[in-house]
Amino acid sequence: MRKVAILGIGQTSIGEHWDKSLREIGGESAFAALQDAGVEKVDALFVGNMLSPLIDSQNQLGSYLADWIGLWDKEAVKVEAACGSGAAALRAGLMAVSAGEIDSALIIGVEKMTDKAGHDITAALATAADADYEVEQGVSFVGLNALIMQRYMHEFGWKHSDFAPFSINAHANAMHNPFARLHEKITVEKFEKSAMVATPVNLLDASPIGDGAASVVIVPAEKVTSIPRRPRVIIAASASATDTLAVHARKDPLFLTAAYESATRCYEMAGIQPEEIDVFELHDAFSIMSALSLEACGFAERGQGVKLGLENEIVPSGRIPICTRGGLKARGHPVGATGIYQIVEIVQQLRGECTDTQVGGAKIGMTQNIGGSGATILTHILITE
Amino acid sequence: MRKVAILGIGQTSIGEHWDKSLREIGGESAFAALQDAGVEKVDALFVGNMLSPLIDSQNQLGSYLADWIGLWDKEAVKVEAACGSGAAALRAGLMAVSAGEIDSALIIGVEKMTDKAGHDITAALATAADADYEVEQGVSFVGLNALIMQRYMHEFGWKHSDFAPFSINAHANAMHNPFARLHEKITVEKFEKSAMVATPVNLLDASPIGDGAASVVIVPAEKVTSIPRRPRVIIAASASATDTLAVHARKDPLFLTAAYESATRCYEMAGIQPEEIDVFELHDAFSIMSALSLEACGFAERGQGVKLGLENEIVPSGRIPICTRGGLKARGHPVGATGIYQIVEIVQQLRGECTDTQVGGAKIGMTQNIGGSGATILTHILITE
Repeated sequence: MRKVAILGIGQTSIGEHWDKSLREIGGESAFAALQDAGVEKVDALFVGNMLSPLIDSQNQLGSYLADWIGLWDKEAVKVEAACGSGAAALRAGLMAVSAGEIDSALIIGVEKMTDKAGHDITAALATAADADYEVEQGVSFVGLNALIMQRYMHEFGWKHSDFAPFSINAHANAMHNPFARLHEKITVEKFEKSAMVATPVNLLDASPIGDGAASVVIVPAEKVTSIPRRPRVIIAASASATDTLAVHARKDPLFLTAAYESATRCYEMAGIQPEEIDVFELHDAFSIMSALSLEACGFAERGQGVKLGLENEIVPSGRIPICTRGGLKARGHPVGATGIYQIVEIVQQLRGECTDTQVGGAKIGMTQNIGGSGATILTHILITE
Repeated sequence: MRKVAILGIGQTSIGEHWDKSLREIGGESAFAALQDAGVEKVDALFVGNMLSPLIDSQNQLGSYLADWIGLWDKEAVKVEAACGSGAAALRAGLMAVSAGEIDSALIIGVEKMTDKAGHDITAALATAADADYEVEQGVSFVGLNALIMQRYMHEFGWKHSDFAPFSINAHANAMHNPFARLHEKITVEKFEKSAMVATPVNLLDASPIGDGAASVVIVPAEKVTSIPRRPRVIIAASASATDTLAVHARKDPLFLTAAYESATRCYEMAGIQPEEIDVFELHDAFSIMSALSLEACGFAERGQGVKLGLENEIVPSGRIPICTRGGLKARGHPVGATGIYQIVEIVQQLRGECTDTQVGGAKIGMTQNIGGSGATILTHILITE
């Protein structure tokens, strides 16, 4: 297998882009990544997207976006793994470059979610859960996460406000990210007084959806031996794992087995220990997911993930900085695009481009992108050499 | 890149499987392929599907089917390229095995289409076309193919009945395929009297949708040096190419550029000429597509594809046998599954398992799977060694 490097990154701001179409925001991030990479064409396009058939009446985003970007004749395909679609598309492209089949690939994560009414979006997001065994019973996607959070609080004795540091850190960091959807500092008081969505998940436990796209250009590492202006970023490890789709079918619904599996494989591949990770962009779709992800990846004991927040270890200067550009919570969560936003943000950290939320001396970064309530989980480790 | 072999195949019959769910038909084909391969587990699952978000309210078919099949913890993902989804999923799995990332993969093409009303299906299939530039104008997917066929007849001087041999061959061959949706011989008279769908496309120009699933198990070729009971089938070439999504944007709407590109790359990879192809499972969603595919792949001059039918060269004993198990026209077209049905059928030909429609001495077979009206086209060449 060939080693692969990330040559270029691009992103759009996340928001309600009613004046732009799906192809326009996808294209905007792609052109930015191509420009950043200093290339005009690539051999293939891999698109991560979850909801375009439901929200935009559009399938086949591979040729749809290849057409728009001017990659006529090139290979192009869409990959879908619910909210894990972005990282799944990256992994598909990575395999093709690793195999030597292609010499460059553009990966676009894109989602246009705000053109429909809220109840349509809720129904669309529920397609990430099990239609027969979960959604059929009337449970929504946020409802599933509320059940997990409730059980976690009961089992390990935490109170709701113990989760506040996750949201506070994310919102504080997003203040310095011009692409973030939310630019608003919050406090524990504000967190506690926030409107309830599905007990115990309130509005500040939950990430906002949005329209957005992020892109990366990848190439074999040997082709980028000398870019003087910045450090070379290598994909040191990539792994994907699954769990049961329905949460009730898991032996332990409070442990993200697929996060553990994919992270463990990545540590092995990269030849590192969790302690060596300098910065971690995790999938905080709901604050409970931050805790579970930190635990499954070896940063905390079971049931003790919230403690890292309470002890101030998740901020940019802490032991394991997370959500350094705002995370899903404040940067925003355009579902199929999120996995690529995470990759873009780790590249920014490894290049030292993160201004006030820069993690000092960051050399090793990790991303974790989750589809469903932990059903598909992809982990990537990026390093500078 | 490692050479990859197809170790096992499985398929369900195509029809209206109202008594079975999406996971059940996907599982049925998967278990058949695993049994045929003589293995219980694989390292990863790749699913080809187009319509499950729209028809079954279900996304994330990777973990959905991995869960059902018992592949817990394993990597699983869905790949979508409209009606080309099946072959696109195979290609994604092929890249991962070629790269050496995994040592075995299960590919499932699956579609459950008959649980909704016809107008819902028509709307869902239209997501393969360009929502902004084509569907917005009121054109349906069959309407687009009708415009192409009309133009082809005008440009090259063919009459409608000249297309009859494509359907007659497909229906005749399906008589010997127990998995086919339609078991009904047809004649030129019947073809001509068939009900009009969208002039000039009538019911016998168009393939029937259906519920169905097909699966293959792939492994590195070196791992199957000795299966005494049957010839080893190798994936000698794989290529994917795209064209503009909207038909009107093409320089020549009567030439499938992406078919030409992907087939040409495959011939090069396999080191063969079109004349050496013994059997060709092409994408006859509409009879016009058979003609265009034969032309783009080098079996006929431009505008002369129909001649191959009229000269009886497309039957199993002809110069370039196509649709030997019924094709999309009579085997049926469960859209995201079709690409894997084609692969399964070529494997059957290369193993010599096709009874009355066996192509004598078949050693080299080709498949071509099309997404949209030629927007994404994947070609594969399989050989026995």
